[in-house]
Amino acid sequence: MGLGTVFLSEVLGTGILLLLGAGVVANVLLAKSKGFDGGWLLINFGWGLGVFAGVYIAYKSGAHLNPAVTIGILTSGADEFAPGVPVGVGSTLVYFAGEMLGAFLGAVLAWLAYKPHFDETPDEGLKLAVFSTGPAIRSYTWNLVCEVIGTFVLVFVVLALGKTPTQLGPLAVAMLVVGIGASLGGPTGYAINPARDLGPRIAHAILPLSYKGTDGEAIGKKDSDWGYSWVPVVGPVIGGALAGVVASLAF
Amino acid sequence: MGLGTVFLSEVLGTGILLLLGAGVVANVLLAKSKGFDGGWLLINFGWGLGVFAGVYIAYKSGAHLNPAVTIGILTSGADEFAPGVPVGVGSTLVYFAGEMLGAFLGAVLAWLAYKPHFDETPDEGLKLAVFSTGPAIRSYTWNLVCEVIGTFVLVFVVLALGKTPTQLGPLAVAMLVVGIGASLGGPTGYAINPARDLGPRIAHAILPLSYKGTDGEAIGKKDSDWGYSWVPVVGPVIGGALAGVVASLAF
Amino acid sequence: MGLGTVFLSEVLGTGILLLLGAGVVANVLLAKSKGFDGGWLLINFGWGLGVFAGVYIAYKSGAHLNPAVTIGILTSGADEFAPGVPVGVGSTLVYFAGEMLGAFLGAVLAWLAYKPHFDETPDEGLKLAVFSTGPAIRSYTWNLVCEVIGTFVLVFVVLALGKTPTQLGPLAVAMLVVGIGASLGGPTGYAINPARDLGPRIAHAILPLSYKGTDGEAIGKKDSDWGYSWVPVVGPVIGGALAGVVASLAF
Amino acid sequence: MGLGTVFLSEVLGTGILLLLGAGVVANVLLAKSKGFDGGWLLINFGWGLGVFAGVYIAYKSGAHLNPAVTIGILTSGADEFAPGVPVGVGSTLVYFAGEMLGAFLGAVLAWLAYKPHFDETPDEGLKLAVFSTGPAIRSYTWNLVCEVIGTFVLVFVVLALGKTPTQLGPLAVAMLVVGIGASLGGPTGYAINPARDLGPRIAHAILPLSYKGTDGEAIGKKDSDWGYSWVPVVGPVIGGALAGVVASLAF
Repeated sequence: MGLGTVFLSEVLGTGILLLLGAGVVANVLLAKSKGFDGGWLLINFGWGLGVFAGVYIAYKSGAHLNPAVTIGILTSGADEFAPGVPVGVGSTLVYFAGEMLGAFLGAVLAWLAYKPHFDETPDEGLKLAVFSTGPAIRSYTWNLVCEVIGTFVLVFVVLALGKTPTQLGPLAVAMLVVGIGASLGGPTGYAINPARDLGPRIAHAILPLSYKGTDGEAIGKKDSDWGYSWVPVVGPVIGGALAGVVASLAF
Repeated sequence: MGLGTVFLSEVLGTGILLLLGAGVVANVLLAKSKGFDGGWLLINFGWGLGVFAGVYIAYKSGAHLNPAVTIGILTSGADEFAPGVPVGVGSTLVYFAGEMLGAFLGAVLAWLAYKPHFDETPDEGLKLAVFSTGPAIRSYTWNLVCEVIGTFVLVFVVLALGKTPTQLGPLAVAMLVVGIGASLGGPTGYAINPARDLGPRIAHAILPLSYKGTDGEAIGKKDSDWGYSWVPVVGPVIGGALAGVVASLAF
Repeated sequence: MGLGTVFLSEVLGTGILLLLGAGVVANVLLAKSKGFDGGWLLINFGWGLGVFAGVYIAYKSGAHLNPAVTIGILTSGADEFAPGVPVGVGSTLVYFAGEMLGAFLGAVLAWLAYKPHFDETPDEGLKLAVFSTGPAIRSYTWNLVCEVIGTFVLVFVVLALGKTPTQLGPLAVAMLVVGIGASLGGPTGYAINPARDLGPRIAHAILPLSYKGTDGEAIGKKDSDWGYSWVPVVGPVIGGALAGVVASLAF
Repeated sequence: MGLGTVFLSEVLGTGILLLLGAGVVANVLLAKSKGFDGGWLLINFGWGLGVFAGVYIAYKSGAHLNPAVTIGILTSGADEFAPGVPVGVGSTLVYFAGEMLGAFLGAVLAWLAYKPHFDETPDEGLKLAVFSTGPAIRSYTWNLVCEVIGTFVLVFVVLALGKTPTQLGPLAVAMLVVGIGASLGGPTGYAINPARDLGPRIAHAILPLSYKGTDGEAIGKKDSDWGYSWVPVVGPVIGGALAGVVASLAF
């Protein structure tokens, strides 16, 4: 399979993932939305089923949708990223690029779907939360630990899936993501995917997210919290790489 | 397969879909119901599992249950709507007619199931909401955008399902609908299906939904909001058609 | 297969169903329980997964677990209740007896599991609700209509399952029951199964459910609401019989 | 397969189970967590999907993850604990040891993931609840009965799974655990697994869980409630053993 196909496949799949993932956060957090205050399990299902939809869409490229998965396959010593796609520097970069672009575009689509709700939400922090993760208690060390652990579980189990006879395919990954969110999402909002966090953060920085104040004036949006932005990139990279190594030893 | 079988199959399947879909909204919104105020995820599961049941019932006709799916198959350039049912003007109209009639009948059944609760619910808007969708923030442009995006995801992934080896069948579509509701249902209540919205809206216009006021007098029901009714028809038609075209290019 | 095996299988399967079904209601309604006030979706999953567990346990007898299913198979004109179990008067009665006894025993087990919580719950209506269903708005006619509709959906889809290639088996039935509860459980609490309601109602009538009042005196339990008891028996019988007839015509 | 492989497999699988299981409790109970007060169904899905992930990880050893399952296989009279692992005293002890060590390590990992939230949670009882179960109403007899019943259901259905053609594998066990938690978790918090409770209780006794008081002083953690600790060990052992015996008679 050509790398152009891989690129397009990952763009589409990661785009759907972010559209549904950012969408569920918008549904729960933004003013007047029908799912407002819908609870953590609703958020977990939104992200899990975003992965579900994305995996079907990106079936041609093996549906990584996540640089941490790509890295985990790499460190596990596999020969192929997907049937017919050899592991290599070029293919790795194509996966990364597709995942990043898809995550950016998916977040933009989620913003379009919820445009009137963004316009009527005054809280700048809530709007940023639709795009990118942030810590419940800011502590870069422990936030990093949490992202490493969460991503390790994701990539480790995904690599185990390939070893077992299962007919569940995308549903298995979806339920796994529901579970990681339910169990390990509390401290950092479970990025567990560098593209999922960085792509939408760039979208947040670019998009016009100011709103009309009570006097009709436009009020500036919050900065995109770049100080935290390395945590949901570095943590998942470490967690994914580690999972690949452990999987190559354990399975 | 004869078109009569297709028609009956779609009537039954879309009927079950609307019975369960309108039913869960009634359960959450109407006075004294045991699921009152049960939350957005409950609504998402109700609709998703309505699709689940409907797909099993309508297996003979490929279980479109939705004109946007029929249109998406059409624009994707497929030869058949279901095994043994060639794409054509006549078969397209038969699908549309079955979907519309089924949606109408299913909404009537849901009304019968919740009859005493309709009688004790004074709020006219809640009663309309059991039948048809309405926007959280009224903005025809953005409401349309939201319906286009939501339906695109539905039909695009449904068309991808046919390309991948999966044993999940109806469960995959059900979980997809749960996910779209969780993530993209906030602004418009996710019609993502012209028949799902228009058929029950006609039922709402016809059925006797007035209630007894505190003085025992009958109070008229709300109008059926025909001003909005084109949005959940046109949006899904555009989204479904677009998904078929993109699927024919991408898969 | 001998009818003794069928009997034992249905007792065990329906027993597990009621243990988990009555259990989840106890968890949500009884004083000091960890799942207290856990919401309608929790109840729906408890019952759905009770069916799930029961279907695995009763695989030998085809896991009816419900006289309405037995009746639906009968009116659909099938030859066998399960592989190797011919339809007949004797086998029908054995299914009924096993389902009733299992439902009775399962409810007793649920009572044992929640014994201290029964003892500390003063409200007599809540205790009855663990065992048997009751209407949100008492109206025998409309309550009956609701039970007929809900059971029709259950049995109709169960009969459709047998016609379609599915690997989901017990999960399909479980999700169907989650969906019926979410969507059609609001008015009557979805008995949709004569044994599920009557067996535990008999248990409620027999078991010592009085509690200690503030002065230490034993306070009598509520009567078992026999006036309503025929609705969740007759409704499901009608719904199941109807579903079998329609299925024999439609599939 | 060597017993070293079995040991490692059970350590990894039970470790993932406890990481996700203890994690979801931390998410719902600890201060400032994003899933705070997320409800009982969230906890049920966290544990169920913890089992889901653990079963994939431990596929080589048959994924017992639970001494009660090991014991149930033993009393059912099976020849093998997993393909290629004969039942015997040595293999039984290896399963027990792997399950206990994994449960201990998983709880430590959950503590690391939620470290800042442990530090900011003053309530000592909530911190203990992340590690081990405790009764809603303390009554050793009835708490024991509840654990016996819950574990019986778990092991009985797991043993039935092996007799039926199912493609669901880990998902079936996961959903079963969701169901047992929803329905039978109210009185005792459903240990239904001696290792799940005892391993983390030891971790609780060892780990530094004191916190800073309002004056900055370290406040001692609660004792680990050793008085209750035998109930979630003895109950599951009895329930599992019983299930094996009944399964050998019924299936």
